[in-house]
Amino acid sequence: MSDTIELIRRQVSDLHQELVRYGLVVWTAGNVSARVPGEDLMVIKPSGVSYDELTPASMILCDLDGNVVEGEHSPSSDTAAHAYVYRAMPGVGGVVHTHSTYASAWAARGEAVPCVLTAMADEFGAEIPVGPFALIGDDSIGRGIVDTLTGHRSPAVLMKSHGVFTIGADAKAAVKAAVMCEDVARTVHICRQLGEPVPIAQADIDHLNHRYQHVYGQQPAAR
Amino acid sequence: MSDTIELIRRQVSDLHQELVRYGLVVWTAGNVSARVPGEDLMVIKPSGVSYDELTPASMILCDLDGNVVEGEHSPSSDTAAHAYVYRAMPGVGGVVHTHSTYASAWAARGEAVPCVLTAMADEFGAEIPVGPFALIGDDSIGRGIVDTLTGHRSPAVLMKSHGVFTIGADAKAAVKAAVMCEDVARTVHICRQLGEPVPIAQADIDHLNHRYQHVYGQQPAAR
Amino acid sequence: MSDTIELIRRQVSDLHQELVRYGLVVWTAGNVSARVPGEDLMVIKPSGVSYDELTPASMILCDLDGNVVEGEHSPSSDTAAHAYVYRAMPGVGGVVHTHSTYASAWAARGEAVPCVLTAMADEFGAEIPVGPFALIGDDSIGRGIVDTLTGHRSPAVLMKSHGVFTIGADAKAAVKAAVMCEDVARTVHICRQLGEPVPIAQADIDHLNHRYQHVYGQQPAAR
Amino acid sequence: MSDTIELIRRQVSDLHQELVRYGLVVWTAGNVSARVPGEDLMVIKPSGVSYDELTPASMILCDLDGNVVEGEHSPSSDTAAHAYVYRAMPGVGGVVHTHSTYASAWAARGEAVPCVLTAMADEFGAEIPVGPFALIGDDSIGRGIVDTLTGHRSPAVLMKSHGVFTIGADAKAAVKAAVMCEDVARTVHICRQLGEPVPIAQADIDHLNHRYQHVYGQQPAAR
Repeated sequence: MSDTIELIRRQVSDLHQELVRYGLVVWTAGNVSARVPGEDLMVIKPSGVSYDELTPASMILCDLDGNVVEGEHSPSSDTAAHAYVYRAMPGVGGVVHTHSTYASAWAARGEAVPCVLTAMADEFGAEIPVGPFALIGDDSIGRGIVDTLTGHRSPAVLMKSHGVFTIGADAKAAVKAAVMCEDVARTVHICRQLGEPVPIAQADIDHLNHRYQHVYGQQPAAR
Repeated sequence: MSDTIELIRRQVSDLHQELVRYGLVVWTAGNVSARVPGEDLMVIKPSGVSYDELTPASMILCDLDGNVVEGEHSPSSDTAAHAYVYRAMPGVGGVVHTHSTYASAWAARGEAVPCVLTAMADEFGAEIPVGPFALIGDDSIGRGIVDTLTGHRSPAVLMKSHGVFTIGADAKAAVKAAVMCEDVARTVHICRQLGEPVPIAQADIDHLNHRYQHVYGQQPAAR
Repeated sequence: MSDTIELIRRQVSDLHQELVRYGLVVWTAGNVSARVPGEDLMVIKPSGVSYDELTPASMILCDLDGNVVEGEHSPSSDTAAHAYVYRAMPGVGGVVHTHSTYASAWAARGEAVPCVLTAMADEFGAEIPVGPFALIGDDSIGRGIVDTLTGHRSPAVLMKSHGVFTIGADAKAAVKAAVMCEDVARTVHICRQLGEPVPIAQADIDHLNHRYQHVYGQQPAAR
Repeated sequence: MSDTIELIRRQVSDLHQELVRYGLVVWTAGNVSARVPGEDLMVIKPSGVSYDELTPASMILCDLDGNVVEGEHSPSSDTAAHAYVYRAMPGVGGVVHTHSTYASAWAARGEAVPCVLTAMADEFGAEIPVGPFALIGDDSIGRGIVDTLTGHRSPAVLMKSHGVFTIGADAKAAVKAAVMCEDVARTVHICRQLGEPVPIAQADIDHLNHRYQHVYGQQPAAR
C-alpha cells in the first residue's frame, strides 16, 4: 500500500513538470491529482508551492472528502473540486486543473471549442464543452465538472470565466488531455481569427474517435 | 543590518530571473526593487546590465530619494519612480517594472484590463487600471503610479504608452503581480479577439478577492 | 547495409528533437521518417513514445508497405501515409508530419498560404497548397499528399482539417521544410490580422526560387 | 591586428546566440556581422551552418566588397548587403538581419511601425520605416537599407516582403536594435488588434530619444 502511494506521489510530482513544459501554468497556479487505486484516497499538489520546489514528498495525501491524511502543507485550494470528481466518477483516476491561456480565453467568453481538427476528433470526440460559472468554497465547481462531463466524450471542460479541468483513467491521461485541450483551443482560435473553420462531418468525428479510443490501442478514457 | 541587506540583495537578484523565466523582459529592460525594512533604503537593479550578469553584489543600495548608498553601477533609470512609491506608500515593500507584451499593448491603447477571470478577481480584485502618460526624468511616473493605485485593489497599473508597474508587501509579491498581470492581460486580450468576455458580477469579484486576500492564507497585499 | 540503417536510425531520432525545439509538436504527436537509400525500407518514429524517450534503437524499420521489419514498438499511426509517399515519389528521401499551430490553422480553414515573403519564395516557390480531407486507415492521406505535391514546387502540403506533411531529398530537408512552413504560416497569418500582404510578382518568385534551389548551392528538393 | 579579429570573431559568434535566445531566427536564417575597426574588413556568419555549430573559428572574414579573406565556408548569402552598408555608412560598426515574425509581418504589408511606446521613442526615436522590395544578387538590398536609414533616427528598417536589417555603432548595438525591433513590432501589433494606439506627441518622442541617446549614457547609435 505505502509503495503504491510512494509511486503515485512521484508520478503526480513529475506530471506537474509537464504543465510547466507545455506552458499551461504560471507561478503556482494549476494542479494535478491522482486517485489511489482501490482506496478512498487521492494525491494532490500542495497549495502555493512553486513548481521548482515540488517533490514527491511534498505531495499531499487526502481522503475523498478533501481532508489531509498525510502532508506538511495545505493541499491545493482546488482539492474539493478534485475530490468531488473522484466521488462521483468511479472510472476517473486523474484530474488536472489549469488556467492555460487559449482554453481560458474560450472559457471567458463562455464558448465551446468546436471539433474541427482530426486530432480533436481523436482525443475529444466532440466540442470541448463549457461548464457553469461556479465560486470556489463549496461543491459548485466539482458538481459543474461532473454534470458537464458525464455522458460527454470530451475529457476536458472549460469552466466559465475560470479555466480548464480534465479527467482521465489515470493522472497521465488527464495531463495529456490538458495539453491537447490547450493545443486545439489555440489552433482553432488562430484559425477563426481569419475566417471560419471547415466543419468535419459528425460521422467522420465518430469514426475517428472510435478508432483512436478503441482500435489504436490507447486505453479508453475514464468516462 | 548588513545581513538583512545581503539577504535582500540576493532576493532581488534572484527575482529578476523570474522576469526572464516568464518572458516579461527583453535585453536589459525591466527591474525589481525591495525596501530594506525599517530603513529609508531600497535595493534595485543596476542600469544596463544584462540579466545573465546580475548578481547579489551588483544590486544597488539607494536611499529613498534614489541616491546611491552602495554600488558600483548606476541604479536603474526607473529608480526615481520606485523611490517615489516607497516614500508615498509605507506598506509597499517591493516594486516591479516591465514592458511585458500584452500588458503594454493595453497600455498603448490606454485601456484598462476588465476583471473577467476568477484568477483576476483573486489577485487584482478589480480591473487593472491605466495610469497617466508621464515622461521619465522627474516624479511624474512615481506620482502617476501612486495616484492610480492608492485606494485601488489592483497591485498593478498600466502606465499609458509605457508599461507596467506592480507593488507588493515584498518584492516577491510584486513579481507575482507582474507575472499575473501579463498572464491575465494575455488571456483577456485573446478572449476579446473573438468576442466579448462574459462579465463577472461585482459581488462575485468582491467575494473571490476577499477570500483570496484574507481567508486563503496569503499575506494581504500592501495597499 | 546495417551501418547505413544505424546511421539513419540516429538521424531520424535526432531530427525529432528539432520538432520539439521549434515547438511544432506536443505530447507524442508528429513524426519523421527517412528512406533507406537503394532499399525498399524506411525508418520511422514508434507510436505513442514521448520525445524524451526516443532513441536510435527505438526507431522502427519498415518496408514500403508499412510492415515492421525491425522494432519493438508499433510504428507511427501515420506510417501508411509515409510509405505511400515513398512508393509514389522515388526522389523523396524524407517525410515529416506535424500539427504545428499556424499551419494547422490554415488547414482548418482549408486555405493555402499565399507566397508573400522572399523566404517563402526561396523555400516553397509558390503558395503552400491545401490537400483533401482524408481519414486515417487506408491510402487516402498518402494519396492526398502525393496528388497535391506532384508537380508542385512546395515541399509542404496542408492536409485539410488535419495538419502538415512535408517532403525532402532527405529527412533533414523535410524537417527544414516543416520548420519553415510553420514559420511562414505564422508570419503571413500575423500579417493578415491587420491587413493584406503586398503581393510578390510571379517573375520575382520564380527568380528567387530558381536561385535558391539551383545557384545557392542547396541540394534541389526531391520533386 | 589578429588579436582584434579573434575578439570580433568571438563577439559575432556569441551574438548569434542572442538571436536564438530571443526567438528571432529559425533554422539557419538570420546573420550578424561586425566591422573590423580601422580596416576594410568585416566578420560575418557562414552560410547554411546551424546556430548550434557556430564557433568563433567558423566565422568568415571578408573585405568590404564581400570577398572572403579567411574562412572555410561561404559567407552568408546576405554578405553583399552587409558590405554595402559598411561602405556607405562609416559610423556603422555592426549589422544584423533577421526574419523575426512580427517585424516581418509589418514588412509583408509594407507598413511602418508607428512610434507609440516610450521604449520605442527611446531606442528608435521615430517610426520603424519600410525599405523597398529588393531582390538578392546585387546591391539592391544594401542600397535600400542605406537609402532608408540615412538621416533617420531608427537603427532598424523593414525591407518590404522580406524582413529586418538593423545597424549600430557595434554588433552588440545592432543586435539590441533587432531584439527591440521585434519586441515593439509585437507589442504594437497586439495593441492594434483591438483598437488604435494613443499617439505620443512628437515633442515627447524627441525629448525621450534625446535623453536616451545622449543623457542616459548610452553610446549614440551610428547614424
